[in-house]
Amino acid sequence: MRNLTEENLTATAVERISQCGNPRLKQVMTALLHHLHDFAREVRLSEEEWRTGIAFLTEVGNITDDKRQEFILLSDTLGLSALVDLMANPNRSRHATESSLLGPFYREGAPELANGSDISGGVAGEPIVVRGQVSSVEVGAIAGACIDVWQAAPNGKYDLQDEAQPEMNLRARFRSDLEGRYQFRSVKPASYGVPSDGPVGKMLNAIGRHPMRPAHIHFRISAPRFQTLTTALYIAGDRYLESDVVFGARCSLVVDYQRDADDHDAIEFDFALNPEPKASNKNSAIR
Amino acid sequence: MRNLTEENLTATAVERISQCGNPRLKQVMTALLHHLHDFAREVRLSEEEWRTGIAFLTEVGNITDDKRQEFILLSDTLGLSALVDLMANPNRSRHATESSLLGPFYREGAPELANGSDISGGVAGEPIVVRGQVSSVEVGAIAGACIDVWQAAPNGKYDLQDEAQPEMNLRARFRSDLEGRYQFRSVKPASYGVPSDGPVGKMLNAIGRHPMRPAHIHFRISAPRFQTLTTALYIAGDRYLESDVVFGARCSLVVDYQRDADDHDAIEFDFALNPEPKASNKNSAIR
Repeated sequence: MRNLTEENLTATAVERISQCGNPRLKQVMTALLHHLHDFAREVRLSEEEWRTGIAFLTEVGNITDDKRQEFILLSDTLGLSALVDLMANPNRSRHATESSLLGPFYREGAPELANGSDISGGVAGEPIVVRGQVSSVEVGAIAGACIDVWQAAPNGKYDLQDEAQPEMNLRARFRSDLEGRYQFRSVKPASYGVPSDGPVGKMLNAIGRHPMRPAHIHFRISAPRFQTLTTALYIAGDRYLESDVVFGARCSLVVDYQRDADDHDAIEFDFALNPEPKASNKNSAIR
Repeated sequence: MRNLTEENLTATAVERISQCGNPRLKQVMTALLHHLHDFAREVRLSEEEWRTGIAFLTEVGNITDDKRQEFILLSDTLGLSALVDLMANPNRSRHATESSLLGPFYREGAPELANGSDISGGVAGEPIVVRGQVSSVEVGAIAGACIDVWQAAPNGKYDLQDEAQPEMNLRARFRSDLEGRYQFRSVKPASYGVPSDGPVGKMLNAIGRHPMRPAHIHFRISAPRFQTLTTALYIAGDRYLESDVVFGARCSLVVDYQRDADDHDAIEFDFALNPEPKASNKNSAIR
């Protein structure tokens, strides 16, 4: 019988999964074991600190439910979500719009509205117009693309977090017209704090970080034969652009209000999609 | 504004905690960010795999409650708990008994019984006697040490998992006598599977690992001015000694039944404690 030591434990744990029938899962779990153990060895993780970590994850689990996803928030605030997004969407071609995080507030089934509609549901705020074109370098304008939009109200809350807002407020789906154009009315978004009354908020406080996101409007744009684009537009001048708590803001996605001919504060932004990859050479999924 | 990329995201995230007022927390979180991001980059973690990971942790959180701690089970099965235990209790002096995992089934407040008592509460099984001495190299026999004992029944279940067993069955605390000796009666423990109906069980199955622990009896031994020893005795010949799912078995803790003069199957084991460290030079705790 081999005696387990600090030095041989990792190799022993990796050996144990030699029978794993899914090569990709084996690869991911092997790397996970190495990094998890190296982390613990590097910091000489104490038993008390381990207990603190277990209690923290338990709290994250306890507060997570249908309406609140504290594990995603944890991943977001540690930069893991942004990293996965950057790897999946490198946009090295510079032909397509940069992606940004989906975030925990996306909801399926937002109402489909006609171009030009107001999505603000009457909440107080400074009115804006948002418009632009959906296209691709390959084919030009894309007609009939679905533009799924969601944002927080000027009080910093999404409909899910705010009893004063009607169901599905500040959410809608639009269709680009024959020239690929879309347009809707709304109110100016505000910077806001991610939920900070749970364990992740306590963590941010303990490590000296604020919980704020810069003002933004989310977009998810899909069209047949194109890769779905998940992104967001960030408002120029926001004080949290440089320090977005979830590492979501991107230079190429910062927009400024332009006073238009009708005396509206307008955001003009054209989205460029990537074509769908021809053959799938993705890594086999872990299920 | 700095544009975030796969390459500069980790440095950016680490910079953000430069204001952390707790140096130890800053050290641990910095190492965590590096290893978490390096893991994701190394395996090129896909968005779908990230979602699978979030769903897995959410399930671990959902199933965890007062009676079931799936995060500890996850840590145990990944070898993290054993690694933290090995680092905290290197026992390089070879003067003291090796430690082993506390595990998720320890309960405070087991009944204090007289030496020689039977802890089996009448469950069917092969009777055994367990006895030995508590001592330290420095002072010899330790009288009045508390020997906290717990084990699974021959059906592989702890009282917490088994409605057929009375409350606190197969659990007790004994006091070593003036010669440091302890003794109790019980039944032979059996190898058993850790709870495998939850997400950790599914994970073990997916990576080709069994969920079994070799037969063992837990001990937690405490005495004033000595370090509390958390350990377990493992039964020689068990087929899972080499592949304990939680990496808990240790060569020095393997014992065999000896037929004694009274025709009992007996385990004889002497525990040696370490004195309490003089001054605390531990890392500052993370709270």
